[in-house]
Amino acid sequence: MTVPDSPQQPYRFPVAARYAGMESSPLKDIFALAALDGVTSFAGGIPDPDLFALEDVTAAYDWVLSHQGHRALQYGVSEGEVELREQAARRLSRDLPTDASQIRVTSGSQEGLFVVAQAMLEPGDVVLVESPTYLAAVQAFSVHGARMIGVDTDDDGVIPEALEEAIRIHHPRMVYLIPTFQNPTGRTMPVERRQAVAEVLQRTDVPLIEDDPYGALSFTGSTWAPIAALPGMSERTILLNSMSKLMSPGVRIGWMRAEGTILDTLAVAKAAISMQSSVVDQLTVARYLETADLDAHVARVSGVYRERRDAMAAAIAPVLPDGAHVTHPEGGMFLWAALGEGYDAQVMLADAVAAGVAYLPGWSFFADHPDRSTMRLSFVTHSPAVIDDAIGRLGEVIAAHPRS
Amino acid sequence: MTVPDSPQQPYRFPVAARYAGMESSPLKDIFALAALDGVTSFAGGIPDPDLFALEDVTAAYDWVLSHQGHRALQYGVSEGEVELREQAARRLSRDLPTDASQIRVTSGSQEGLFVVAQAMLEPGDVVLVESPTYLAAVQAFSVHGARMIGVDTDDDGVIPEALEEAIRIHHPRMVYLIPTFQNPTGRTMPVERRQAVAEVLQRTDVPLIEDDPYGALSFTGSTWAPIAALPGMSERTILLNSMSKLMSPGVRIGWMRAEGTILDTLAVAKAAISMQSSVVDQLTVARYLETADLDAHVARVSGVYRERRDAMAAAIAPVLPDGAHVTHPEGGMFLWAALGEGYDAQVMLADAVAAGVAYLPGWSFFADHPDRSTMRLSFVTHSPAVIDDAIGRLGEVIAAHPRS
Repeated sequence: MTVPDSPQQPYRFPVAARYAGMESSPLKDIFALAALDGVTSFAGGIPDPDLFALEDVTAAYDWVLSHQGHRALQYGVSEGEVELREQAARRLSRDLPTDASQIRVTSGSQEGLFVVAQAMLEPGDVVLVESPTYLAAVQAFSVHGARMIGVDTDDDGVIPEALEEAIRIHHPRMVYLIPTFQNPTGRTMPVERRQAVAEVLQRTDVPLIEDDPYGALSFTGSTWAPIAALPGMSERTILLNSMSKLMSPGVRIGWMRAEGTILDTLAVAKAAISMQSSVVDQLTVARYLETADLDAHVARVSGVYRERRDAMAAAIAPVLPDGAHVTHPEGGMFLWAALGEGYDAQVMLADAVAAGVAYLPGWSFFADHPDRSTMRLSFVTHSPAVIDDAIGRLGEVIAAHPRS
Repeated sequence: MTVPDSPQQPYRFPVAARYAGMESSPLKDIFALAALDGVTSFAGGIPDPDLFALEDVTAAYDWVLSHQGHRALQYGVSEGEVELREQAARRLSRDLPTDASQIRVTSGSQEGLFVVAQAMLEPGDVVLVESPTYLAAVQAFSVHGARMIGVDTDDDGVIPEALEEAIRIHHPRMVYLIPTFQNPTGRTMPVERRQAVAEVLQRTDVPLIEDDPYGALSFTGSTWAPIAALPGMSERTILLNSMSKLMSPGVRIGWMRAEGTILDTLAVAKAAISMQSSVVDQLTVARYLETADLDAHVARVSGVYRERRDAMAAAIAPVLPDGAHVTHPEGGMFLWAALGEGYDAQVMLADAVAAGVAYLPGWSFFADHPDRSTMRLSFVTHSPAVIDDAIGRLGEVIAAHPRS
């Protein structure tokens, strides 16, 4: 006997397996908690809007609309507007000789990661990632049916021997790394580590997807050349940059650097996904890079972020339990604390929110084998005084959750 | 014996099968030809930039940057900024009651189509499309491993009996239609045809992806309510709109309307693809829709396009061979000519370009069984005098290519 559908049943669209059960997510719930009134949130990687160079950005929009208005409103090309590609190449060439023809513009790094996944990944492919790594990259790869395998890291980033072993076992399609001021840990790979990783990748012939959105946000004055700039690596690396953390996340402009025929595939994939990025925004970012002093702006922002990093590092050290480990980022936006065995940062979150402080539980950053005692704390959004106060309250919550 | 790679061989990234062999495309070559100096191109669907409401758009950017600047440069939400969703809902509600919560903002319709494909399509799924249909939609679906099946059409659009038969045979995951001023044919489905199609879709329980980027560009003053507005259809239709043809393609803002849980899946897919659309552009389009008179602007543009449609229709009728068929669009941007058996518009293109006129050969718009005698001619870019002259030259080329 077949039962006819009740007319009260709402229609349900078929959903692809890649998104089945993803209508809501624990992360969405966490961010909803973090956004509650009275909660000091360290959960998101949200730049402080008071630090935006609003005047310079506005001037760039004004100039584009009054000098290139018709072009800005017209269709552009999937590869990206030439002025922006030239500015991107100019910046990259400080470390790695780059021509505008090697740049593909994307609507932020997220679209860049998605374009790479579209261009390169088959269902079942393995992608090796740092353990822990950036979760939105994991999602862009996962929805292409790729399997993420986390590679062990230490305070210098991914461990070359572990990487080589994982390559031998898993035959990955590609390796995804964030070598500088990593999300979520804030760690940076020293030059020797980069060289060792490059050597492994060349020996095993595995391509590198190098994500570098934070590299310019240095607290020491030193910057790190990307792995792509090491001998032999530029032709086997797709290097992603973004203006989100340096100028504005709302403008959604980033770019990729690559060499050879993959550039054509990246452009075709970009066209299939979104045709092209906003021409107004592209020309505006190009104008901004040409006329404003981005380095001075980034130095100013980094100075403020450094004070906040200092405030958080000072506040958190005394409240962590014995055996806990916390990173000391020399740039970027994030600090990463592992409370140690017996703690569960996800379980603790409800009490933290009740005490008016939120963080991102670290389990979500692991492709596999999550360390549930970890948490990511963004130090960039709040002033030192607010940080000091909120971390104090977090300390009370930690103290009330003795090791189980 | 294994031969070691020559060090002269450039590194080659692995490419996913979905993009294998797509580094270049015949279409890219066609557009390169069409862009040659001295060629009057009817190939692209490029709005006339002289008709852009540049002053109003500039005023909207100015207002957003001076009143909502910090917010415009900050992260937004994947669903889209609420002001824009409210404006979209307001416009849609003329035909179909719509709440802002039912809107998902996309970076143009292309991203909307890609988001739908991500959310709904499994490899091997069949998508039924009009024959011919919009080729970039076909690409967004194809890279998800879907199989496109073209359904027969007449001058009133897709034929309901053919649609029902194709559904019975192919069990499609979804049906994709452009009911109003279709690309590439310029055809519009009359109300009775829409009702018959809706009846088939409800009886067979197949969801509809309804693409409506051109609907407002009417030459008669009449507009057509979307199929989604017919009784019982709103819950089983994802309706896509775009500002590209009404305000600016360079700004890359469009939206989708849907109901129920698929809205959550669409937001998750959008987040995986590009996190969110440019907040600056979203707020600007919202401001523009709130303060400028889009209807008056579209009426002005449509008036100009109508004159150009008239010029092209008048010029092409006498130069077409006996037995040719040409559409008479009552809106939109495209006119579609089928020269008839024995003609090959692709073969003819080289001579046309040599004579200083370009069109898009129609074969590329067919999911299967291409009619190679067809061509798409966009009438919106050039003045009546230029159209008249160039179509005259096209006539000479056609005359020099007698039926084979």
